[in-house]
Amino acid sequence: MRTLNVAMIGHRFMGRAHANAWRQVGRFFELPRQPVLKVVCGRRPDAAAEAARRLGFEEHATRWEEVVRRDDVDVVDICTPGDSHLPIALAAAAAGKAILCEKPLANSLAEAREMRDAVEKAGVVHMVCHNYRRAPAVQLARRLIEKGRIGTLRHYRGTYLQDWIVDPAFPRVWRLEKARAGSGALGDLASHSIDLARFLVGEIEAVCGLLETFVRERPLEDGSGRGPVDVDDAALALVRFAGGAVGSIEATRLAPGRKNHNRFEINGSRGSLAFDLERMNELEVYEEQGPDSGFRTVLVTDAQHPYAGAWWPPGHILGYEHTFVHTLRDFVLALESGQPPSPSFEDGLRNQQVLDAVERSAASGRWEHP
Amino acid sequence: MRTLNVAMIGHRFMGRAHANAWRQVGRFFELPRQPVLKVVCGRRPDAAAEAARRLGFEEHATRWEEVVRRDDVDVVDICTPGDSHLPIALAAAAAGKAILCEKPLANSLAEAREMRDAVEKAGVVHMVCHNYRRAPAVQLARRLIEKGRIGTLRHYRGTYLQDWIVDPAFPRVWRLEKARAGSGALGDLASHSIDLARFLVGEIEAVCGLLETFVRERPLEDGSGRGPVDVDDAALALVRFAGGAVGSIEATRLAPGRKNHNRFEINGSRGSLAFDLERMNELEVYEEQGPDSGFRTVLVTDAQHPYAGAWWPPGHILGYEHTFVHTLRDFVLALESGQPPSPSFEDGLRNQQVLDAVERSAASGRWEHP
Amino acid sequence: MRTLNVAMIGHRFMGRAHANAWRQVGRFFELPRQPVLKVVCGRRPDAAAEAARRLGFEEHATRWEEVVRRDDVDVVDICTPGDSHLPIALAAAAAGKAILCEKPLANSLAEAREMRDAVEKAGVVHMVCHNYRRAPAVQLARRLIEKGRIGTLRHYRGTYLQDWIVDPAFPRVWRLEKARAGSGALGDLASHSIDLARFLVGEIEAVCGLLETFVRERPLEDGSGRGPVDVDDAALALVRFAGGAVGSIEATRLAPGRKNHNRFEINGSRGSLAFDLERMNELEVYEEQGPDSGFRTVLVTDAQHPYAGAWWPPGHILGYEHTFVHTLRDFVLALESGQPPSPSFEDGLRNQQVLDAVERSAASGRWEHP
Amino acid sequence: MRTLNVAMIGHRFMGRAHANAWRQVGRFFELPRQPVLKVVCGRRPDAAAEAARRLGFEEHATRWEEVVRRDDVDVVDICTPGDSHLPIALAAAAAGKAILCEKPLANSLAEAREMRDAVEKAGVVHMVCHNYRRAPAVQLARRLIEKGRIGTLRHYRGTYLQDWIVDPAFPRVWRLEKARAGSGALGDLASHSIDLARFLVGEIEAVCGLLETFVRERPLEDGSGRGPVDVDDAALALVRFAGGAVGSIEATRLAPGRKNHNRFEINGSRGSLAFDLERMNELEVYEEQGPDSGFRTVLVTDAQHPYAGAWWPPGHILGYEHTFVHTLRDFVLALESGQPPSPSFEDGLRNQQVLDAVERSAASGRWEHP
Repeated sequence: MRTLNVAMIGHRFMGRAHANAWRQVGRFFELPRQPVLKVVCGRRPDAAAEAARRLGFEEHATRWEEVVRRDDVDVVDICTPGDSHLPIALAAAAAGKAILCEKPLANSLAEAREMRDAVEKAGVVHMVCHNYRRAPAVQLARRLIEKGRIGTLRHYRGTYLQDWIVDPAFPRVWRLEKARAGSGALGDLASHSIDLARFLVGEIEAVCGLLETFVRERPLEDGSGRGPVDVDDAALALVRFAGGAVGSIEATRLAPGRKNHNRFEINGSRGSLAFDLERMNELEVYEEQGPDSGFRTVLVTDAQHPYAGAWWPPGHILGYEHTFVHTLRDFVLALESGQPPSPSFEDGLRNQQVLDAVERSAASGRWEHP
Repeated sequence: MRTLNVAMIGHRFMGRAHANAWRQVGRFFELPRQPVLKVVCGRRPDAAAEAARRLGFEEHATRWEEVVRRDDVDVVDICTPGDSHLPIALAAAAAGKAILCEKPLANSLAEAREMRDAVEKAGVVHMVCHNYRRAPAVQLARRLIEKGRIGTLRHYRGTYLQDWIVDPAFPRVWRLEKARAGSGALGDLASHSIDLARFLVGEIEAVCGLLETFVRERPLEDGSGRGPVDVDDAALALVRFAGGAVGSIEATRLAPGRKNHNRFEINGSRGSLAFDLERMNELEVYEEQGPDSGFRTVLVTDAQHPYAGAWWPPGHILGYEHTFVHTLRDFVLALESGQPPSPSFEDGLRNQQVLDAVERSAASGRWEHP
Repeated sequence: MRTLNVAMIGHRFMGRAHANAWRQVGRFFELPRQPVLKVVCGRRPDAAAEAARRLGFEEHATRWEEVVRRDDVDVVDICTPGDSHLPIALAAAAAGKAILCEKPLANSLAEAREMRDAVEKAGVVHMVCHNYRRAPAVQLARRLIEKGRIGTLRHYRGTYLQDWIVDPAFPRVWRLEKARAGSGALGDLASHSIDLARFLVGEIEAVCGLLETFVRERPLEDGSGRGPVDVDDAALALVRFAGGAVGSIEATRLAPGRKNHNRFEINGSRGSLAFDLERMNELEVYEEQGPDSGFRTVLVTDAQHPYAGAWWPPGHILGYEHTFVHTLRDFVLALESGQPPSPSFEDGLRNQQVLDAVERSAASGRWEHP
Repeated sequence: MRTLNVAMIGHRFMGRAHANAWRQVGRFFELPRQPVLKVVCGRRPDAAAEAARRLGFEEHATRWEEVVRRDDVDVVDICTPGDSHLPIALAAAAAGKAILCEKPLANSLAEAREMRDAVEKAGVVHMVCHNYRRAPAVQLARRLIEKGRIGTLRHYRGTYLQDWIVDPAFPRVWRLEKARAGSGALGDLASHSIDLARFLVGEIEAVCGLLETFVRERPLEDGSGRGPVDVDDAALALVRFAGGAVGSIEATRLAPGRKNHNRFEINGSRGSLAFDLERMNELEVYEEQGPDSGFRTVLVTDAQHPYAGAWWPPGHILGYEHTFVHTLRDFVLALESGQPPSPSFEDGLRNQQVLDAVERSAASGRWEHP
């Protein structure tokens, strides 16, 4: 079988998740090409070497500029913070590599547009890693919607709640710096809710947003004092969809007890769906079926459920990491089939347009269009 | 024991709930005065007579103008649609009666203000019946907040979802006529969420609202054809509280499977609370308590819980109707103590100001102040 | 309308629940006769007088021997501890009164048989108050089973867990004395699970039981020292049903956190049902319906659900006390229709036979037949 | 780093789960030796070759007798049906290999005893794979119990419910043949509940059991007609623990809607714990903590939770397969430390003694001792 050589840029949290998925995907899914963990790239040589050993890459490197150009690299997998997505993607596109990029696509709308233009011009395969689309329960939600099982969509209610920075003594990590992360809960979490909204309901045509920072100063990580937090702690928006549905999106990292509460509920004219990432193997489904109707908990682990048949028997649940495996499976299949994978950089751009509109609306105090 | 003679105006859904509460309150709570179901008033004589028989009133009447002036009436309990609240309340105030009025207080801000002014000028006891404040679990939420158990409040997320008009063949009942009901889900349901927000979090100082009507025409009740729906099917708002918290409020009657889903979640700096009216005996409480923290389900039925000790042993749950009994208990106690009951017409007015601001915002496309 | 005069013997916990139901039943259900709370009977005159006032009885009395013979009494409602059920029921039967008796029917099998024989010989209407049969969700379970919706029944799993005596300092109340209560968790709680099993699955033909007392001595209520606990704290049994199903029944009062956890799950060849009294408005229903099946939560509050239409709109939940109202509704209807109400004293006897078999099995260490 | 060469015998469901765990364990945990997937053994050469390719083994083989003796094999991992555990384990022990064996240890008590004796005599490291012990939530349960957080243990309630053979047209697979599987739900499922009971509560000293086969004949897999089912469809038992607790254990494969419902609840004198494998990242914990106590849902994904820190941030859940990874991690550490891993073959034997006592009791109709 032909191999598929992967270069991964970045090896922290996202890098670990991607590397695991690259190792696993060929074990559980039939693929036309066998992924090879060729090289992992990080700024510090020792950390990169350690990452290569731990994550299973053949080599490590410190300069992504060289890595993305290597002849023996087929795929560039971008797992770095948002401020370096643009240059890496541009270089990889110029080198003709297929690109998988972590979300959000960029730290600004202008960057996202430049990236989208670059990959389209270069004609390379491109995908943004909104991995939660590929939780089996989310795929099932999409399938039910497409079949018309819940009718015309009217309401989308997306919340992504976490609590890891609720303690004011939690340090000002890179995700709390605008220059590194672009935004706070908005880009980190709300971008997931927006992607799910676009995947399941359709394009968003107007938003009214609110951004709030509750803890405006935090200890610096190096112990040298305190520094300002210049990103949002929480982001809320009302949204109108092009298709007529209305909804709300909320993301916060200061909701005590909510660890990874990426939840949505969708109400249609004939039924409803609800999902919570903390119970990601379940989809709540309501269909009107006479006098004894009710929300039912579908355990999305049957052989005929999306992706689930590749794993274990019914009732044997999957975890967070599996959403990445499913993403890579589809990425690899797309590489071979010539069918562009989804979500593409175009999706990443549109997501960014919504993020941007939320920021503009939060500043203007009125509805804005993405 | 002295009696307390009650005249109830209106005897449909709310009338049945109030009448039950008037009958029950003295059986389960020690009261300084014994409520007497004196007279029930309705427009049609036969229906009023039947209501008196069924609900346990001594008499029935058809003209509220006379009823509210009767010497042997102490309390006027207004259970009619919103379009008659104003004249009844004004007449009752002029006659010096204590007044309990169903929510929302009025169909417009101007009416609400006039009612508030009238009762204050007359010096009569006044209360608006936002009964859900008096679910024991909601009272417990308030108690925990007041004790600082969840710290500084940051997020309020209130949704009131129902599905009884999801079928487009459902007729255009009075609640779907602006002239009768004032508004749709906004006044009927969102007003509850707003009252809970004000009760638990504090005053709302700005809103950004959205109103939507999905089904714009429905069969008339008399079978004479179809008529327009000129109220909202759904109302959404982002809100900013005076105390610094941010939040969202949503009400809809087109969420299939949600029967009476009056839910809120509050996140503070040290914990979180969540409530759902469909499981109204439970309060979800999160308090940070080290490594094995988690949301706990408090079954609010213990003797020391608000109101619960008057009923049954722990674990023996209460129902919807009990919230009215608790409301009347406090109304009667307030009559005797001279301490004004809460929520007052002033609260009703402030609620109406928020409703009004949501409507204005939905029209202007920008944030508005109540 | 003709009246139905009720004499209630006993006025503590069960008396309060029955009195409330007698007051309420005619308000929410159309009845052929109007219940009148004629007389309440208690051993101590002051307590009985207070009960009459509080519960709404016209009179009070202290000697049940006289009360049950009164010409103006139609129904004798027995709400005393189990040790007095026999003499009261015998006297009431001899006086030709209709009898409603709290569960368990008696403190021993011999007593239960004598009571059953007496009412049958006297030809009076008789009913034992297993009120949980008349939770709407339990009635719905029965309806679904009768329609064959879950197929042939195979498994019954009944647990009734409470925690009110988990503290070893909790005093030795009458329910912990064999002479008064007959047994412990067995008669108090397991008898409910057995009644639900018989109601939903059918007759029990063999049991293997286990009784355990964890706290064998407790403070006396009068402060005079400590006394032995001679009833079971926990009762467990495996059961075989005549129809072929197998199951288990467990009752304990020492399960911390379980307040009133009267739960059952039934598995048939085509589906499953589950119920929990702490969420008594819900029935969990599983029916095989293709790839996206799941347990659904039916909120049993719709107009077409058993009893529910008499109360409030969908989603407005009922409480513990309503199960008594429904019981009385059916008792009164049975009085008029001549159709014997169910569960009858015969049911009470059969229940007692199962309790007795569990006790015998716990002693013999082998399976026993009821 | 030194390697650890693994020979895996069997490659169907359990083989896939073990192979995945062998590949993953060194990626997420620091190990003293690096597992190498040396050889996989199956009866049919083509299937074995395919398994080697798919699962990542260097070689494949068809004769386990030779494999277990190979000098380059350190560990023999037995993943075959129960009827071959004995000869493989005996040969592996004789060859001085460390042995990991799937559960139940054997198909009969005599076999289990012979296996235990063999490994002890040979002095090899031995472990039986009761993987659910190593769900982080189960480990947390143990930790809380050991700390006395729920006090003296009184009740254990274990149910393992599935539904995969509820359709009578489901064929008579090997798990339904006594000669291959030893027993039905008893050995397959109840053995897990028994292991959890022993792990969390302690030794079982007496049982009263019931076995039932609802579908006594099924289609043969080869289409050649129908064959008898000679194992139990359902197994139930009451149990008494040496430490004074009482409990029940139930396993069935005919509970519609229950896919992998391996659930337990434990009540102690001060608190309670509950777990459900279908939501295996959660532990329900009740601790008495004053008036607002309640069961709390601990999401067992924090860094300080057992095993969880090796994976993802809080709230990012694990799946079924991770329990095997944790098992192997402890097996490998035990190999190095010299500390015998747990559960050992001795545990497997004691488990088998309980299974055997249930079978004897089901036959004798009386309590039996393991």
